[in-house]
Amino acid sequence: MKDIQSTPDTRGIAIDQVGVCDLLYPITVLDRENQKQQCAAKVSLSVSLPHHFKGTHMSRFLQVLAEHQGEFTMRTVPAILHDLKKRLDAESAHIEIEFPYFIQRKAPVSGLSAPMDYLCTFIGESNGTSDDFLLRVRVPVGTLCPCSKEISDYGAHNQRCHIEARVRFDGMLWIEDLVTMLESAASTEVFAVLKRPDEKWVTERAFENPKFVEDIVRDLAVTLN
Amino acid sequence: MKDIQSTPDTRGIAIDQVGVCDLLYPITVLDRENQKQQCAAKVSLSVSLPHHFKGTHMSRFLQVLAEHQGEFTMRTVPAILHDLKKRLDAESAHIEIEFPYFIQRKAPVSGLSAPMDYLCTFIGESNGTSDDFLLRVRVPVGTLCPCSKEISDYGAHNQRCHIEARVRFDGMLWIEDLVTMLESAASTEVFAVLKRPDEKWVTERAFENPKFVEDIVRDLAVTLN
Amino acid sequence: MKDIQSTPDTRGIAIDQVGVCDLLYPITVLDRENQKQQCAAKVSLSVSLPHHFKGTHMSRFLQVLAEHQGEFTMRTVPAILHDLKKRLDAESAHIEIEFPYFIQRKAPVSGLSAPMDYLCTFIGESNGTSDDFLLRVRVPVGTLCPCSKEISDYGAHNQRCHIEARVRFDGMLWIEDLVTMLESAASTEVFAVLKRPDEKWVTERAFENPKFVEDIVRDLAVTLN
Amino acid sequence: MKDIQSTPDTRGIAIDQVGVCDLLYPITVLDRENQKQQCAAKVSLSVSLPHHFKGTHMSRFLQVLAEHQGEFTMRTVPAILHDLKKRLDAESAHIEIEFPYFIQRKAPVSGLSAPMDYLCTFIGESNGTSDDFLLRVRVPVGTLCPCSKEISDYGAHNQRCHIEARVRFDGMLWIEDLVTMLESAASTEVFAVLKRPDEKWVTERAFENPKFVEDIVRDLAVTLN
Repeated sequence: MKDIQSTPDTRGIAIDQVGVCDLLYPITVLDRENQKQQCAAKVSLSVSLPHHFKGTHMSRFLQVLAEHQGEFTMRTVPAILHDLKKRLDAESAHIEIEFPYFIQRKAPVSGLSAPMDYLCTFIGESNGTSDDFLLRVRVPVGTLCPCSKEISDYGAHNQRCHIEARVRFDGMLWIEDLVTMLESAASTEVFAVLKRPDEKWVTERAFENPKFVEDIVRDLAVTLN
Repeated sequence: MKDIQSTPDTRGIAIDQVGVCDLLYPITVLDRENQKQQCAAKVSLSVSLPHHFKGTHMSRFLQVLAEHQGEFTMRTVPAILHDLKKRLDAESAHIEIEFPYFIQRKAPVSGLSAPMDYLCTFIGESNGTSDDFLLRVRVPVGTLCPCSKEISDYGAHNQRCHIEARVRFDGMLWIEDLVTMLESAASTEVFAVLKRPDEKWVTERAFENPKFVEDIVRDLAVTLN
Repeated sequence: MKDIQSTPDTRGIAIDQVGVCDLLYPITVLDRENQKQQCAAKVSLSVSLPHHFKGTHMSRFLQVLAEHQGEFTMRTVPAILHDLKKRLDAESAHIEIEFPYFIQRKAPVSGLSAPMDYLCTFIGESNGTSDDFLLRVRVPVGTLCPCSKEISDYGAHNQRCHIEARVRFDGMLWIEDLVTMLESAASTEVFAVLKRPDEKWVTERAFENPKFVEDIVRDLAVTLN
Repeated sequence: MKDIQSTPDTRGIAIDQVGVCDLLYPITVLDRENQKQQCAAKVSLSVSLPHHFKGTHMSRFLQVLAEHQGEFTMRTVPAILHDLKKRLDAESAHIEIEFPYFIQRKAPVSGLSAPMDYLCTFIGESNGTSDDFLLRVRVPVGTLCPCSKEISDYGAHNQRCHIEARVRFDGMLWIEDLVTMLESAASTEVFAVLKRPDEKWVTERAFENPKFVEDIVRDLAVTLN
């Protein structure tokens, strides 16, 4: 059966990235409390295509994923990228794995527990001999506007917002620890379930701790460095 | 050229709705201040399919839309539905036209003006000899939690939320008037642009006017009846 | 601490549904091959609110979910609904649990295996003494247009589409079996990974098996009854 | 009334981008056939924030937009950016304006006309003394797989896909012309409304003109240069 993808191409144009994107895929990641967590990830994979090949072999992306089914960690992601480069005869490979990660969180006063989800992404790149790995986490928090508090006779405007950070690190970094760092830069963390004493706690904590979004970014820059 | 859609079908099963959905289409609607407003609408059209036809003729939906290009109002929507029924030999026809509608809004103290968008939907149905027309509008508002205000030593938890109402009416109802009705049921309306004196106004107004979402629903039920 | 939600309301208006919606939550469902599967579900819960209460207690929804954390099946869903009614003093309760469910699928010729996701929803309702349970599944398939095949000198227009069915049933129905039923009504099933012999198989199978979307709906109506 | 945003900040950290994002806003753009077209745009605006200011003034973004309400073109976008830099005391400013743009398209044989939408984005940047302007357009097209055609006894797999190009240009470039360029790189253009003779034309044209997505990218690279 003829393999058209492998036939030579004469236009002389290399393509930076060709691949599959937003593929829903079941994965396992490391979990600080329970060792492992199953997640439904959105995976994007791409490789560079040399100018002399007509097309890439899309099915091989899925085969490489299948062989590594199991843990996606800062150790396995580079291995997947190396396999992609070898199997697809490519100079560089890129992967993004986005998944909701659940952490059981206790309300601050009642101690009531409920799972909260944090959108996480592993971003890996292998280019020639250099590998890169980034962890991106998005955390919902509460902010209370310092300007509104200052100028109003009573009350103050508060908002829910998301803080997103992308970090490169040495050694091991738990998702749980990065979430805590991001939350501590806001006016208050938020919880999935609040009894009335918890609600009092959150309302007062935000009011005592007003922050512009610019303050959050700057405080985080200080903490993460 | 053979017309397979019109060939007879022998399974004896009528289909309730067959049509096109979420088609992006440029429309014109009535505007209280400027007479007309151009909008980018998402249009869904469907008809019932009698059991003896194999398929419907999708292109005729678009032809009917094209003939009525122009105003979509509570007068033209029934006319479109009647045309759909005739052209597609159907017992019933249904249309939903969802569009962002812009209204210039002035901030409460500074008077600064900016456009705000309200998601609106016209819902029309023609079934045998009876026609129906509904207007649905979604309005962003602010709520301040009465429980949080009561139990906290200072401050109170506020939230942005959307109120959505679907109304059937006689005579003319401006989108602008329905928006005002919905806003007046909340703790405060919201604006696209606020100078500091406006922010003070909004913060204090919400604090003076705490409401549960259940309060909003009930107050609206009273107003709309 | 004052419980404002429980204070009496005098407007005399009962509310049909009040609750939480689109909450991301980790769940476990039954899996035909592996007994259980962990999923990230979007959960919506609501109860009716009698006219004499001012507000509902949102945190109790989450507490009920937490107590039943674990399997969501056609047996546990009614139990959750009964608990909701009791804890929230409500006449009726409604739940929708939407989740991507993964099934390992083998390509038709090469036998290459890869997970595919199917969007599933459990819909439960408990109203007075009557309970209801529905399973909704959405399956991607391929269709080939009979009209295009008939009138073209060569080739024929094919499309990817989704078939969605909502079924009420007695006894046990595996998600896997419902997926198979839905696929068999289309021109061809689709796969996550295809080698060239698989692609030949899928292309030819669709060409031999042209279907309008109306045909699919009717064939399914026959099968599901 | 105290202006907290303008108070000095001592953390010594400049912020690259602070602004508003995904604001729905009514705009007017140039239209080759009808001179002007009203669109509902999603606008994102940002400026750099020097390290010595505590916060930016969000309301001024909206004020600048309001003053320029009207045409967004490759001539007005730089003017908006200059105003943003001046009003917000910033080194650099960035704007993205995404909007659905409608073009009336005629079916290839029947000549039946219907509007089709193309997602367009103007991207502007002003950094110190240098300005930049890009036009991005996304066009739906049809591709027919050369591999599937080669290996199958009859038929061939076709797909709908989107081509997206981002171009920097001198002089005037009509959106209409860029759409035509992108379409001509695919197996076939697609239309909103097709009568049967049109469907025959599209089916046969795609079959005669098989292309991998890699072919499309390379052919476009040749055309656009």
